[in-house]
Amino acid sequence: MAEEKLPTRAEDFSEWYNQLVLRAQLADYAPVRGCMVVRPYGWALWENIQAGLDRRFKATGHQNVAFPLLIPRSFIDKEKHHVEGFSPELAVVTIGGGEELAEPLVIRPTSETIIGHMWSKWIQSYRDLPVLMNQWNSVVRWELRTKLFLRTLEFYWQEGHTAHATEQEAMEETRQMLDVYTDFAVNDAAIPVIPGKKSDAEKFAGAEITYSIEAMMGDGKALQAGTSHYLGQNFAQAFEVRYLDQAGQLQHCWTTSWGLSTRFVGAIIMVHGDDQGLVLPPKVAPYQAVIVPIFKNEPEKASVLAAAKDLKASLAKANIRVTLDEREGQSPGWKFNDWEMRGVPVRVELGPKDVAKQSAILARRDRPGKEG
Amino acid sequence: MAEEKLPTRAEDFSEWYNQLVLRAQLADYAPVRGCMVVRPYGWALWENIQAGLDRRFKATGHQNVAFPLLIPRSFIDKEKHHVEGFSPELAVVTIGGGEELAEPLVIRPTSETIIGHMWSKWIQSYRDLPVLMNQWNSVVRWELRTKLFLRTLEFYWQEGHTAHATEQEAMEETRQMLDVYTDFAVNDAAIPVIPGKKSDAEKFAGAEITYSIEAMMGDGKALQAGTSHYLGQNFAQAFEVRYLDQAGQLQHCWTTSWGLSTRFVGAIIMVHGDDQGLVLPPKVAPYQAVIVPIFKNEPEKASVLAAAKDLKASLAKANIRVTLDEREGQSPGWKFNDWEMRGVPVRVELGPKDVAKQSAILARRDRPGKEG
Repeated sequence: MAEEKLPTRAEDFSEWYNQLVLRAQLADYAPVRGCMVVRPYGWALWENIQAGLDRRFKATGHQNVAFPLLIPRSFIDKEKHHVEGFSPELAVVTIGGGEELAEPLVIRPTSETIIGHMWSKWIQSYRDLPVLMNQWNSVVRWELRTKLFLRTLEFYWQEGHTAHATEQEAMEETRQMLDVYTDFAVNDAAIPVIPGKKSDAEKFAGAEITYSIEAMMGDGKALQAGTSHYLGQNFAQAFEVRYLDQAGQLQHCWTTSWGLSTRFVGAIIMVHGDDQGLVLPPKVAPYQAVIVPIFKNEPEKASVLAAAKDLKASLAKANIRVTLDEREGQSPGWKFNDWEMRGVPVRVELGPKDVAKQSAILARRDRPGKEG
Repeated sequence: MAEEKLPTRAEDFSEWYNQLVLRAQLADYAPVRGCMVVRPYGWALWENIQAGLDRRFKATGHQNVAFPLLIPRSFIDKEKHHVEGFSPELAVVTIGGGEELAEPLVIRPTSETIIGHMWSKWIQSYRDLPVLMNQWNSVVRWELRTKLFLRTLEFYWQEGHTAHATEQEAMEETRQMLDVYTDFAVNDAAIPVIPGKKSDAEKFAGAEITYSIEAMMGDGKALQAGTSHYLGQNFAQAFEVRYLDQAGQLQHCWTTSWGLSTRFVGAIIMVHGDDQGLVLPPKVAPYQAVIVPIFKNEPEKASVLAAAKDLKASLAKANIRVTLDEREGQSPGWKFNDWEMRGVPVRVELGPKDVAKQSAILARRDRPGKEG
């Protein structure tokens, strides 16, 4: 696994990244060009990111939903900037159940259109507003240059969608969700980000304003790590999303959308990683601690493993995500390197002397040296 | 919302079901034939089902992963029963990024093939086994006769996939996961199920043996509510999933797969529902309790709402999922009917006299009458 050394970041940042993703078993290349398989270690990291965000979304009044993967092709055409932006990137289903479809379907590149369509049925009156929704899913965009986590044909994300009675409320929502992303990035992922406004050329296809959080990578480049869009009435007009106001007048809603994707995993790798490998922030790390047992013979093995299991149980009871590396046929040194490469925040070394002294050696991934 | 009465189950069970799903706002019809939109109330129910299962999967050593949505068409052809079973149901992507694809891609109807392909890269030695994976996603099968939750073109589910060194271990896993489903159905969803073996005609396309749990609906019919497949070496041979055993011999793995889908929401509706509407089991109900405030004038309103908010906070602190119905312009009686139709396990009525007496009136959805 960690036999060959990674290239250093200074030598080749891009190749350091590619090899690290594969060796740490975060993800692998899928048989379809540009798609990825997210492996258990990578998915556990994403699940922790999801938990940190989902909690914040619910605390701000949003409810999760699921809109379909398949969207009629004609929906994409209804908002003029949306169709310009997304048409070149669509995956199109033309055959279903063995027959050519009368109207082709596209795999969602994002869900503003189908959500607009459903909202036009559900929203009638000002009493129905605001509508605050979010969904966790994957979308497909036919990208030409791809890189694991950073840009893939299919990627995983959440897409928030909200509808409001006033322009001001929609603007406040757009900014609130940018703040939520900032709070998450800083406090859960230990990534300092700069919130800001994208240029007209870079904004979301169909948005009035796109805000983003940008993070600084280890190679000094910026990476867009989450976006929040103020959509004005563009989609509400295209899909006739209207409500009766308190005066009995029919008004178009003001809408927003906001998303953060598995690209954020790429940001964590590139912001915190060093030449030895990943350095994972404890709040989102799949394992916060790993216990590596050290022994030379069978009696030592029995007593060390028994103590290691007790320690694991007591750490787990304290809600620490902990694993015990019981792999046979690998030396402690090999295991140290492996877990260092995989970025576990704290390594606990446990040998016969430690067991006798009721102590352990700790090593923190984010700084050199060991602690008793 | 609940203005018109539902048809009774005796009158028309199928129409009772259809109307109830829409009125309780569990789901709605999507613009693409046979697809559904899962609304917040339905998705919250599914999230609780997910949590109950996911906890059990992790406790039995499984790890979550994500394999891509898009599978090369040729993969489906590699296992002879699999291709027979699934070919007629495929959604086929023929255009990507504006160009005709050299090889068409299918949207996964299930993931045995692409997982087999990746396992053939990842699994080398007996030390790599067992591989115990699960993923939460959606799949597409081009069904002709559809019904919300019970059979939709796209549906949400989990698919477990495991690889083992021996036939016996794979059989044990297949049965273990059937037991996990049974335990979940009985203890979390209060649904008695009968575990059993499907006939050869009904088994999964590519399985040696398919086990299922079957539940009895309110109309006396059985519904398949979860399946666990023993796949033998069928997919391991088709995709060359092999390992070096301890004697240094190359062997094919033995594999399993198992799934439970949003159809289970349909089972909950049909097993527990009555002529008034849903009856939701407390462990998976989106809201376990609803507080309905009762008042006639502004001073009463102020004191009742203050007490209701205190009550809500103390129930939430005790980890009870609770909501307070503050909707304006609807009578308490209308709210009682609405929440009865939506199946909330416990209704708490709180009026000025209750506030004065520091008490409340409780009504349990699963039995008639009220309790002081």
